[in-house]
Amino acid sequence: MKFELTNDFRERFSQAVDERDEAFIIASLEGEKPADISALLHEFETEDSKYVIDLLPSEVRADIINDLDEDIRSRFLRVFEPTEITEIVNHLDSDDAVDILNELPIKEREEVIACIDNQEKEANILDLLRYDEDVAGGLMAKELIKANLNWSVVRCIEEIRRQAENVQKLYSVYVVDDNDKLLGRVSLKKIILAEDNMHIADIYDPGVTSVETYMSEEEVAQVMRKYDLEAVPVVNMQGKLLGRITIDDVVDVITELADEERQMMSGISEDVEEADSIWMLTRARLPWLIVGVMGGFISARLIGVFEEELTRITAIAFFIPLIQATGGNVGIQSSSIVLQSLANPSAFNDSMQKRLFKVFVIAALNGAVLATLVYGGNLLTGGAVNLALVVSTALFCVVLIASLIGTITPLILHKFGFNPALASGPFITTTNDLMGLAIYFYTVHLLL
Amino acid sequence: MKFELTNDFRERFSQAVDERDEAFIIASLEGEKPADISALLHEFETEDSKYVIDLLPSEVRADIINDLDEDIRSRFLRVFEPTEITEIVNHLDSDDAVDILNELPIKEREEVIACIDNQEKEANILDLLRYDEDVAGGLMAKELIKANLNWSVVRCIEEIRRQAENVQKLYSVYVVDDNDKLLGRVSLKKIILAEDNMHIADIYDPGVTSVETYMSEEEVAQVMRKYDLEAVPVVNMQGKLLGRITIDDVVDVITELADEERQMMSGISEDVEEADSIWMLTRARLPWLIVGVMGGFISARLIGVFEEELTRITAIAFFIPLIQATGGNVGIQSSSIVLQSLANPSAFNDSMQKRLFKVFVIAALNGAVLATLVYGGNLLTGGAVNLALVVSTALFCVVLIASLIGTITPLILHKFGFNPALASGPFITTTNDLMGLAIYFYTVHLLL
Repeated sequence: MKFELTNDFRERFSQAVDERDEAFIIASLEGEKPADISALLHEFETEDSKYVIDLLPSEVRADIINDLDEDIRSRFLRVFEPTEITEIVNHLDSDDAVDILNELPIKEREEVIACIDNQEKEANILDLLRYDEDVAGGLMAKELIKANLNWSVVRCIEEIRRQAENVQKLYSVYVVDDNDKLLGRVSLKKIILAEDNMHIADIYDPGVTSVETYMSEEEVAQVMRKYDLEAVPVVNMQGKLLGRITIDDVVDVITELADEERQMMSGISEDVEEADSIWMLTRARLPWLIVGVMGGFISARLIGVFEEELTRITAIAFFIPLIQATGGNVGIQSSSIVLQSLANPSAFNDSMQKRLFKVFVIAALNGAVLATLVYGGNLLTGGAVNLALVVSTALFCVVLIASLIGTITPLILHKFGFNPALASGPFITTTNDLMGLAIYFYTVHLLL
Repeated sequence: MKFELTNDFRERFSQAVDERDEAFIIASLEGEKPADISALLHEFETEDSKYVIDLLPSEVRADIINDLDEDIRSRFLRVFEPTEITEIVNHLDSDDAVDILNELPIKEREEVIACIDNQEKEANILDLLRYDEDVAGGLMAKELIKANLNWSVVRCIEEIRRQAENVQKLYSVYVVDDNDKLLGRVSLKKIILAEDNMHIADIYDPGVTSVETYMSEEEVAQVMRKYDLEAVPVVNMQGKLLGRITIDDVVDVITELADEERQMMSGISEDVEEADSIWMLTRARLPWLIVGVMGGFISARLIGVFEEELTRITAIAFFIPLIQATGGNVGIQSSSIVLQSLANPSAFNDSMQKRLFKVFVIAALNGAVLATLVYGGNLLTGGAVNLALVVSTALFCVVLIASLIGTITPLILHKFGFNPALASGPFITTTNDLMGLAIYFYTVHLLL
């Protein structure tokens, strides 16, 4: 790296941008990796970034824009003319081109597509626009090299040469029959090592793993991870080869899914990061906080119902936090174990009864230990025997029910197509808070 | 796939294993992918799995064992003779071999290493054993193909042929000088397209990204993700080429880090999954539950201090859940935004003051909205004005302080080498619960 992404360099570069110091900018960015330039441009206003980008060669420009964060890019593309966007799109693989097109308003998208003069590119892009972003079809690129089973190795090499510029990342050549049906693959290593008089049929590997266009991005990630693949061919239901997905896109998918899960688990309702504006961060946090406050209000009403008991024995109030904290902790543990199973599914699943029975046994064990601790602790600290009994009984019940709610909620969410991580966030805490309080005060009412 | 991993197949296969039906087992596993056979074996007892594995050819056996989950594998390897393990190790890449050796007791590890007769393999393994598992040196494999800058392309192809069996995944050839210093790389595509009379120097790409042996696995993952790499060369501080890391290992790292984070955030203290035993799952959940219960006890004592106020105005107890839930939610939101930044670091960091100031402003905005809501809600539902004021004031303070604790705790943990996700779990909830209560009752004490 010629420049280092330090705060000092940012200062110096920022000054050069302010002064429109073309020579310095060109000199310091020359030969740099697009991903580094993107990281630098994230620090500047759209207008300044556009000025910098216009100084660079068009193929670098395309890669930089491809590497920008989505939210910054969509803001950024608004200052580009359709012809400029077309030029960018022309330099990118079809999957990346479609990602950018999907960020444009429909009218502008049509204008950009109309400007593409390479007919194959246009057809590829129109084909890919049909798929949702989060299925295999939406992840795949059309650029790949395929060889007919009957070709000679020499002919295959010619094809690689012809397509060399289009297909940037090349790991293997996919082998198809006359109808483009996927039959297998040949690694580049095998092609290099093959004798000139050999045919594809002699060296190809028929045991190729493929995914179908409608598979979800999670499933694609699971397949590629399980079989350690760097690329996977995408076929339609008839087995016809349509495209391929490379591991770099899947690594992004895995990272985004983890980010999304973290946000859901912590009750953040939008895709934000620390660098976002105060307004965005506040907005992303308020909804679940308000839900929590509403839960708190309902709790207040619920406790109010038992005001009489509370006035009689003030010490009841002491254990509200204990009951609630335990209910919340148990619920989140339970739902996160389900999340783990959903994220890394095993080949075989036990029946629902068996799973719930196991949850029940674990909860009973944990509940018994905690209830005993609390009972002992209460007596040791000089608490009343009957109150100690009430708290422990309520705690045991709360652990059981919080476990079941924590287990079932993510499964139901998953079943109906929602992100199950929602169940590990403030949702489960708020529900369990209320449930815990109700159980506690009902036990108090019954036993005291 | 010839067999489908269905529950029916598992039944049928299980029966065949019980009856030691060799013919059925060999016939149904032949040609299957090792990862699928591993998934199947996860369902069986060690003894039965060993029987199945012994029926398979030795190279398949090595791949199956390599694909097994770590905990199952270490149990499994106990029934293997050192010579059998040596045979497995001989078939694996050096990084995978070292992973297995690291799971063995020291004495057995030494025995296995002593049995390796390929001297190069032994040297590679001894070299890799020196590194921690979670740094670049511990992730890298020694198997790679390197070419001297002065070589001809033909000589490079000869080298690929010579090493073809050792280097299974081949994406590019690394270019070095006479002292093995890394100079660049040549993609296989370029080698295929090169003319026979060309030299490596004519076609190599000097702009290769590399990592150093001591870099953490998180950093390696960030580099590979940022530059979309399928493999990255590992060098020592003098720039000498020592090995390479392939993306499949990094995908596993990313997934494991996400799993670990999820577990920490939900207060699970061991690496468990739903399929683990009831004993393991109970044990993994108890520690943080006990911490929570202890927090609850301290809360009880704390409220006890204010028993007099509580007896005077019972309604104070109504709002304990509201204060606590909000403190918990705000704390987890704050720490998870820090986690997000630590997981996807940007090139530039604002100063600490600037970050904390931003946190403060966001907290003040959120706190003001929530306090107003609660004040209004209290009055609307016929609450007393002075109590409404106390609750809102306390809530505002709790939001401010919980934000700061939630932001600072993960940063401190990270600084001292702990997993910052710890701060998003029951730790922060328990701390904030206590802090929230203290603020609330202190406000009550002051204002009522």
